[in-house]
Amino acid sequence: MDRLTYKASGVDIAAGNEAVRRIARLARSTFRPEVLGEIGSFANFVRVPEGYRDPVLVASTDGVGTKLKVAFLADRHDSVGIDLVAMGVNDLLVHGAEPFFFLDYLATGQVVPEKIEAIITGIVEGCHQAGCALIGGETAEMPDFYAPGEYDLAGFAVGVVERSRVIDGSAITPEDHLVGLVSSGLHANGYSLARKVVFERLGLKVTDHLEACGRSVAEEMLAPTRIYAKPILALLKEHRVKGMAHITGGGISENLPRVLPKGCRARVRLGSWPVPPIFRLIQKEGGVEDAEMLRTFNMGIGMILVVEAADARAIRERLAALGESVWEIGNVIPGAHGIEYA
Amino acid sequence: MDRLTYKASGVDIAAGNEAVRRIARLARSTFRPEVLGEIGSFANFVRVPEGYRDPVLVASTDGVGTKLKVAFLADRHDSVGIDLVAMGVNDLLVHGAEPFFFLDYLATGQVVPEKIEAIITGIVEGCHQAGCALIGGETAEMPDFYAPGEYDLAGFAVGVVERSRVIDGSAITPEDHLVGLVSSGLHANGYSLARKVVFERLGLKVTDHLEACGRSVAEEMLAPTRIYAKPILALLKEHRVKGMAHITGGGISENLPRVLPKGCRARVRLGSWPVPPIFRLIQKEGGVEDAEMLRTFNMGIGMILVVEAADARAIRERLAALGESVWEIGNVIPGAHGIEYA
Repeated sequence: MDRLTYKASGVDIAAGNEAVRRIARLARSTFRPEVLGEIGSFANFVRVPEGYRDPVLVASTDGVGTKLKVAFLADRHDSVGIDLVAMGVNDLLVHGAEPFFFLDYLATGQVVPEKIEAIITGIVEGCHQAGCALIGGETAEMPDFYAPGEYDLAGFAVGVVERSRVIDGSAITPEDHLVGLVSSGLHANGYSLARKVVFERLGLKVTDHLEACGRSVAEEMLAPTRIYAKPILALLKEHRVKGMAHITGGGISENLPRVLPKGCRARVRLGSWPVPPIFRLIQKEGGVEDAEMLRTFNMGIGMILVVEAADARAIRERLAALGESVWEIGNVIPGAHGIEYA
Repeated sequence: MDRLTYKASGVDIAAGNEAVRRIARLARSTFRPEVLGEIGSFANFVRVPEGYRDPVLVASTDGVGTKLKVAFLADRHDSVGIDLVAMGVNDLLVHGAEPFFFLDYLATGQVVPEKIEAIITGIVEGCHQAGCALIGGETAEMPDFYAPGEYDLAGFAVGVVERSRVIDGSAITPEDHLVGLVSSGLHANGYSLARKVVFERLGLKVTDHLEACGRSVAEEMLAPTRIYAKPILALLKEHRVKGMAHITGGGISENLPRVLPKGCRARVRLGSWPVPPIFRLIQKEGGVEDAEMLRTFNMGIGMILVVEAADARAIRERLAALGESVWEIGNVIPGAHGIEYA
């Protein structure tokens, strides 16, 4: 009888250990002073950051969705980690929280240390951009579970915010202005639909050039999600923001209302910002309705700030000075809770 | 031309919203007083628990591994959530931390609200057992990514511990005793090998009866991982524990040394605890070497406590009074960092 080993059953602990060593080295570069100890014990320790009187922890979890499929097709794995961190920390930022620490879950059919290292390199880059420490993670080898060469990623982000400075939208009133911050493209949402159009309807390959977008399919569809930590945290030191919405799955249509209090309605002016060509392409080639586009994709706006009308201009200028592309995209009106487009 | 919608591309936002409503209701039952607000905003808030002078946060992430495959075969989804919480919080407990909050990531090819609800029911049950609040989660619908009916789960656990009471094994010295706590069976590790033996070599179905184990394949292989929160936290109020090891992937052989300081070696006495029949079955039918078994499976011991020799008996008795099955399974000896079996 053939003797079975864990390795023969598809799990290579030695490869896993090698991957862990590579990850630990990378992760250490993100450590903040609050991090106690190092990765490798059963769990990972952090002290609550100093300078908070009544610190509140804010937590969020997310994945990258089927954007990963594009990474598989392009065999490029060093940018989806940025998306992973972005999806998590942008959700913390909308509440005024400082990204604090991050953990990742990476599941794959077979651990290939070089590929794991590329993925973690992206996560580490994202953590640097967000200013949070990558304090732990799990690399799960699950043979017969993921297709060869494929993997899934989940991220867990924890931030901290002074309790009296939590931003939750409750202060929003009619007449407030909506300030939109540019996205880098699709970010990490709507890829099931986007892939259907690009790869099935148009029959494109990742290496094909997208004339309208001025870059290849892979470049366009793997452009990492923007992490808004630096501009938002800098802005909040000087200006008041009443509410924010991170535009993810559900688009502006579903995400912006999440931050509005009762009796407040968002009025978003279509045409007040430039819609990137990739969205036009998907809409045209997929024959997608306007409303469907707006509730699936970010349409070029990755984050929306709700601000006092009198502050709007100064906030736009400050964000521009911080290197952001921003637009006044609408305002809050009295009415049924929800959103309308003009 | 056929118009594409996000739903036609395989993502059903309405089903997702229905699942979110079911989850929110379940999750609310786990809330602790520190939880601020409810699930549904962009992220979720908690205050640091009171009663800590210098609180340290401890974080861990893990999945359930290919134990999920057994849940798929048995079409039983209400227990893997317990495994998910167990894998996370047991890692916090080894450091003396109180499980505080939990977030889950659930990725599937198609959101079926009833199935999602069953999975979350298990997570909620695990959170109740651990005493932590389920404050958030992500249900990702990823068509063409997971096989029909399949899903993956990742969990993120955060605990809190008084800094001066962190347990890290540094106080361990030769002569300390090893106290083993019973596992409920395979827990959530070694399933790639276990499945190969049970389903491929033996050709069993999940509904088949396992004579040696006195229960069906599904019952044996889906028995939820034990959550050691209640006995461990109760014990720590009265007794000193110098180090703990949660026996997961890598078995006793790889997990126990993780907690030992330099110059300390674990001497584990095989035969000092009863090895559950499922492990004997896997070893015999798979022709697996002893050493391979010990570095793949928990062999009946889910958690090991390293305690002062003089305290060992009182600790065993206290744990027994708390309903635990415990054994004195060995001791620490001076020598090269590592483990040996006697």
